[in-house]
Amino acid sequence: MQDPRDPQTLTSTPSADDAPRRGRRRPAGRGGGGDRTTVQQRPWKQPRLRYEPTRAVSDDELESIHQASLRILEEIGMDFLLPEARQMLKAAGADVDPDSERVRLDRGLVEQALSTAPSRFTLHARNPDHNLEMGGDYMAFCCIGSAPNASDMEGGRRPGTHKDFRDLVRLSQALNVVHVNGGYPVEPIDLPPRTRHLDALSDLATLTDKLFHAYSLGRTRILDGLEMVRIARGVDAERLMREPSLFTIINTNSPLKLDGPMLEGMMEMARHNQVVVVTPFTLAGAMAPVTLAGALALQNAEALAGLVVTQAANPGAPTAYGGFTSNVDMKSGAPAFGTPEYMRTALVGGQLARRYGLPYRSSNVTSANTVDAQAGYESVFSLWGAVMGGVNLLKHGTGWMEGGLCASFEKMILDADLLQMVAEFLEPIEISEAAFAVDAIREVGPGGHFFGSPHTMERYRDAFYAPMVSDWRNYESWREAGAPDAMTHAHRIYKQLLADYTPPPMDPAIAEELAAFVARRKEEGGAPADT
Amino acid sequence: MQDPRDPQTLTSTPSADDAPRRGRRRPAGRGGGGDRTTVQQRPWKQPRLRYEPTRAVSDDELESIHQASLRILEEIGMDFLLPEARQMLKAAGADVDPDSERVRLDRGLVEQALSTAPSRFTLHARNPDHNLEMGGDYMAFCCIGSAPNASDMEGGRRPGTHKDFRDLVRLSQALNVVHVNGGYPVEPIDLPPRTRHLDALSDLATLTDKLFHAYSLGRTRILDGLEMVRIARGVDAERLMREPSLFTIINTNSPLKLDGPMLEGMMEMARHNQVVVVTPFTLAGAMAPVTLAGALALQNAEALAGLVVTQAANPGAPTAYGGFTSNVDMKSGAPAFGTPEYMRTALVGGQLARRYGLPYRSSNVTSANTVDAQAGYESVFSLWGAVMGGVNLLKHGTGWMEGGLCASFEKMILDADLLQMVAEFLEPIEISEAAFAVDAIREVGPGGHFFGSPHTMERYRDAFYAPMVSDWRNYESWREAGAPDAMTHAHRIYKQLLADYTPPPMDPAIAEELAAFVARRKEEGGAPADT
Repeated sequence: MQDPRDPQTLTSTPSADDAPRRGRRRPAGRGGGGDRTTVQQRPWKQPRLRYEPTRAVSDDELESIHQASLRILEEIGMDFLLPEARQMLKAAGADVDPDSERVRLDRGLVEQALSTAPSRFTLHARNPDHNLEMGGDYMAFCCIGSAPNASDMEGGRRPGTHKDFRDLVRLSQALNVVHVNGGYPVEPIDLPPRTRHLDALSDLATLTDKLFHAYSLGRTRILDGLEMVRIARGVDAERLMREPSLFTIINTNSPLKLDGPMLEGMMEMARHNQVVVVTPFTLAGAMAPVTLAGALALQNAEALAGLVVTQAANPGAPTAYGGFTSNVDMKSGAPAFGTPEYMRTALVGGQLARRYGLPYRSSNVTSANTVDAQAGYESVFSLWGAVMGGVNLLKHGTGWMEGGLCASFEKMILDADLLQMVAEFLEPIEISEAAFAVDAIREVGPGGHFFGSPHTMERYRDAFYAPMVSDWRNYESWREAGAPDAMTHAHRIYKQLLADYTPPPMDPAIAEELAAFVARRKEEGGAPADT
Repeated sequence: MQDPRDPQTLTSTPSADDAPRRGRRRPAGRGGGGDRTTVQQRPWKQPRLRYEPTRAVSDDELESIHQASLRILEEIGMDFLLPEARQMLKAAGADVDPDSERVRLDRGLVEQALSTAPSRFTLHARNPDHNLEMGGDYMAFCCIGSAPNASDMEGGRRPGTHKDFRDLVRLSQALNVVHVNGGYPVEPIDLPPRTRHLDALSDLATLTDKLFHAYSLGRTRILDGLEMVRIARGVDAERLMREPSLFTIINTNSPLKLDGPMLEGMMEMARHNQVVVVTPFTLAGAMAPVTLAGALALQNAEALAGLVVTQAANPGAPTAYGGFTSNVDMKSGAPAFGTPEYMRTALVGGQLARRYGLPYRSSNVTSANTVDAQAGYESVFSLWGAVMGGVNLLKHGTGWMEGGLCASFEKMILDADLLQMVAEFLEPIEISEAAFAVDAIREVGPGGHFFGSPHTMERYRDAFYAPMVSDWRNYESWREAGAPDAMTHAHRIYKQLLADYTPPPMDPAIAEELAAFVARRKEEGGAPADT
């Protein structure tokens, strides 16, 4: 049975437009560039976890983790490196040491914060088709964030540049299964630090019409980001305040520290009713105890402390509970990802987030240095932990390599295929008389085959997920074709997606306003040099 | 922190003995060769699924699949190609068509069979340390079975030989996480077909002390297998009858057919109280309906029909419920594995097996032609479906490539690492005051680190799983080391394991008896030529 629409055969489109061309009117289309590519994909859609999440610890054990975290916050406390934050927490009732940066939070403060944080909210993209539900059983997948290096088979591994940044952002837009831009996919180190955020956020606002993220590297960058999102969405400040449209990831400086720029960012985001995802980076054996229970207790203490900050800044501000506990290689101290330890802490992180009624953030991660079997298995193991843990926001969904030190163009595609498979896995099985096919089984009869049966012919086109990367040819055909491995397929597909890329439409007036804002802020010098 | 016992540094043992040397006395050792290798492994242990299995359909939907299967068996029936089987089923109350091979089974017969089949039993290996619990939350992992080809990086891909067969069997013994030999890992096609089973089973009985499998290719081969297991275990026929020690996989000829040799084998195995695993090979869109519900209804009907056969032959005979439903590539008809469709049917297969109170068999599978990222992700996706589906017997646990057409030496190692990670993932997290490490967190304090803390020093050696294959070095060190991918690591490790291999001890009298039996049966000509 031959289907002429072979998704593995990628036809090239000679007129493909690789320029962003801000302000030029383009035909409106749902989903932006992703829907117009010659690479066959699932449509843009948020998956939902209809299965029961997996519980790795009992309810009693979960409660004891919670209690251990409360003791950490009450007895040990945390260092908050921003005086303004300490004042705010003191006003909220925290025990603030006047002679140091130490703040102790009692359980009443934590309970108060948990009572005001919303369990579910909507995130607004400039293309309303790309709005996201955050919480409940909804999932959203992010592109990689924050890699210092980029790599592909052609150019090898190199420090990130603005060109790599823009190409990765284009892929993020082109891949339907990427719902969110999760930070800078690679750091564009050829851009000046003080104005880098202006160029980067401008790219994110124009090359994509999906949600994006701003780094909490001080107040100025967050305020710039908020203004750029407001302009890109074409809304006023009041509406932006009603409609969360930007998110930031806060990594505590584990153990038990929050620095000034992060605190400035999270407080400003919360005050503007934007989304703060608090994710302690608790590597068991390094920044956290070597025991998983200890690492989880610390993760949880820090996540709850972050929650207290956002809710003290603005009760009801949208937040998410981030888990990123993994282990290190005890021989070298190197962080390890997608490990059995990672999987179990991802499950418990989800249990804690559900106990608190907060959306849950986890990640798709690997330590592999090349897109080999290890990259495949560590990523799927981490997805197993995250998805069955009930993840709502999956960071680093596509492209993450080397424990986060490299954004791989090929891994972008491989991961997009993995995420599409996960999304398909989460689709309900159709259970109906027609689906049971008893009459078709009767017609085919013992020893027959279903290839040509009417029941098959009516359904075969959409019956199964058609992968982008997987090569299902038999060995002989595959060998004749040059024995391509998954990385080779992914390389071809990313090239094709970039060739097919067209920027999503943007109102010329908005594009102009955005460009003017960037120009003015650059003239002003961008962010202060010290942050 | 340096641990001198680097598991990635494999020291060679120059006196390694690569010959099986039947009858030569060797020092007794728990677990056989696997425990004496220089490759660091988890000890031999059956993992248990302490998590709640994932349900992909509701109880009502599950019941409707069951009902559809009963209708298929009642209204359409199945072809049984062995007159003796039809007579037996007729005597048991089945509706047997006198003019064809068709047999219709009513729901009463199915219910009767379900009432006598045991839900849990022990399988006895010749080394009692390698006995297996089958059922409940216990898991057992098999080595690959039945590949026509073998491959490794050095020798490339080739039709299976006796040498490859023996080397793969040695690896199966050497890998602690392989609990069962699941058939011939590769077909030794250089051995004559009529006596092949004698050489192959003799190797399985001597090169390993773990359980093995006999093919149901007619009565003679099964009777030979039973006698060889009896001799190897050093027990009499009555004890063998009391203690299941051999298993066979029955693949129905889907749709709705069971051939003569398979029926002979399964009836003989059941009569001897040995384990029959009925696994319909229901590829949706080919031998089964294109809809997952239809493929599952057919799988379930055939599995239940197999159960009726074993219980009619010997009520109470141990059986397992096998699921192997996957989909085909609708463009080429090629079977696909480790797909989202495979994952969901693996979950539902487990739900059906639990509804019936039968041990559940699933598999670790991939269509990949080389040990690349696809091999990694398809295998872990299939493990995700199998493990969260509550698998008890995981077939093809190590080594499976190309949809079963090739046994890869490197994949043997890669999969063993994956299975060890799964086993580690299933270990409970220690929840205790000591594990919460609140005092250690207090001592380390905000901004400190846990590397050198007493809490870490006491625990770091066994804190985390140390993988065999995964390369966690940073990019620079990895590149300096020649940029090895996972396949390259696996190649090195399989060579080391073979070099370290020593055959498990066997009483010389038993070895002699076994050799004499094989010699006599060869003299007699082995199995009849027609099967």
